[in-house]
Amino acid sequence: MLPRIAYFGPQGTFTEQAARGFAADSEVDSELLPHDTVPAALDAVRRGEADGACVPVENSVEGAVPATMDALAEGEPLVAVAEAVLPVRFSVLVRPDGGPVRTVASHPHALAQVRHWLAANLPDAAVVATTSTSAAAVAVLRGDYDAAVSAPVAVRHYPLEVLASDVADVSDAKTRFLLVRPPGVVPGPTGRDRTSIVVTAPDRVGVLSDVLTELALRRINLTRIESRPTKGKLGEYRFYVDFDGHVAEPRVGDALAALRRHCPRTRFLGSYPKAVEGSPAPAADNAEFVAAAEWVARIREGRGA
Amino acid sequence: MLPRIAYFGPQGTFTEQAARGFAADSEVDSELLPHDTVPAALDAVRRGEADGACVPVENSVEGAVPATMDALAEGEPLVAVAEAVLPVRFSVLVRPDGGPVRTVASHPHALAQVRHWLAANLPDAAVVATTSTSAAAVAVLRGDYDAAVSAPVAVRHYPLEVLASDVADVSDAKTRFLLVRPPGVVPGPTGRDRTSIVVTAPDRVGVLSDVLTELALRRINLTRIESRPTKGKLGEYRFYVDFDGHVAEPRVGDALAALRRHCPRTRFLGSYPKAVEGSPAPAADNAEFVAAAEWVARIREGRGA
Repeated sequence: MLPRIAYFGPQGTFTEQAARGFAADSEVDSELLPHDTVPAALDAVRRGEADGACVPVENSVEGAVPATMDALAEGEPLVAVAEAVLPVRFSVLVRPDGGPVRTVASHPHALAQVRHWLAANLPDAAVVATTSTSAAAVAVLRGDYDAAVSAPVAVRHYPLEVLASDVADVSDAKTRFLLVRPPGVVPGPTGRDRTSIVVTAPDRVGVLSDVLTELALRRINLTRIESRPTKGKLGEYRFYVDFDGHVAEPRVGDALAALRRHCPRTRFLGSYPKAVEGSPAPAADNAEFVAAAEWVARIREGRGA
Repeated sequence: MLPRIAYFGPQGTFTEQAARGFAADSEVDSELLPHDTVPAALDAVRRGEADGACVPVENSVEGAVPATMDALAEGEPLVAVAEAVLPVRFSVLVRPDGGPVRTVASHPHALAQVRHWLAANLPDAAVVATTSTSAAAVAVLRGDYDAAVSAPVAVRHYPLEVLASDVADVSDAKTRFLLVRPPGVVPGPTGRDRTSIVVTAPDRVGVLSDVLTELALRRINLTRIESRPTKGKLGEYRFYVDFDGHVAEPRVGDALAALRRHCPRTRFLGSYPKAVEGSPAPAADNAEFVAAAEWVARIREGRGA
């Protein structure tokens, strides 16, 4: 139910492709609104000009996306309600009337990820950088270059032909995206959920160990951790932590409360279904948490010991 | 004493600037050898074609450099012996005979970091992407574009004029570089050292908590942590951890031994002097470690209890 989804544009990139996927899962026809930067897409949601935003969070080749991480840790809170994982496999696009390929254009990140493919398939073509994969498609359309290494979705926007598809040197490269919106009713647990938080911690020895011990003591499985210095505050760090489970589960709620006691500036970034199937670990059982809480309640009521 | 230093090129980039700094600190005249990729620069050291390599590890705007992290965790071990932190402040270079600036070229990362400066100072110039900041300087020299946003070191290689220097939207952006070489005598402790390790851990709940607790119990101050999935092994993670201290210190040696017991695939990435002055926390005192070890020794010898 997000009629207007902002995304980190331009049109024709992997982020648009992820945003289209989120829109397809929605019950309404969503309008997709490209923005120049990740913070601009998030601010559009904060100002009420969009109902949600699709932003990249990490890439298996390029690593985390600090712009997204910083922008989610600061400003009005936004909460993820869905994630998507897209394989990074490019299409090589040419003009329908195109002759031999003498020049190939794309964003330097994309060029770096198809280096071997180009050497094997277009060894004589000169390589040219553009500001985005979709700017390359526009430049090919305009006749500036002969081929563009683009996201597959680019052919929906530009009348180009696919010379090759599924192009990637590292076959399992992927990018993870989040769909975020202002805090509201959290989507219910599905049994294979992920929770994301960011913890701003003072520069005290052992503070991260305290945080992770609270998770480990409750048998909560960590799936990602990343530290970033807080802008402009020497010696203060933020820790971005992803773990298995949903805030509605007793074990997770209990752990979040404990983290908040250690670090009052702990921010909830969402509980949402995991996009990757893989071989998910079975969801941890919450029965022991329920039984233990009932035991304490009985003691407090004088009905047990 | 590293006569040949490989670096992630081309010439004229921030990495060359860092490599020059390392070479200047050396007692010999070092030859600088540019390589196309980070893994290529590291492999040159592994094959004995260079004595050390200068590689970027993290950027405060763009985040960690996964290519470096992956390449240090795999293959023949390499160990850091020095680090450098460079402010990311660009020079805008033009041809001496150049007229008005109608086009500005650089790597998209650099363009993103001077966006506001360009809007304020060259609002009418068209922005063009190149594959590196130094490729932009070459293109300006060739007459393709009017101005290049480059590393300050680029003017050493190309006969261009500095139109503006110290250009950066985020004034405190920095990049951290390491100088690595094959394992050998570790540089002695200076009292303000950093130690880097990478821990490959099985997907077991609490393993990272165990690792960090071993550091916290010894009052060791963590300065960075980053997780990355191990390539091709589902559910196995690597954790890159930086902390204050030197392997020669009892507390650090003791902690490393403990980590190795938890995770046999713990790799030492070096103990080296910290590049950033800032207001460093005073080095932790090792007296308690020495005293405690002597106490155990006395017990074993029947001389105390």
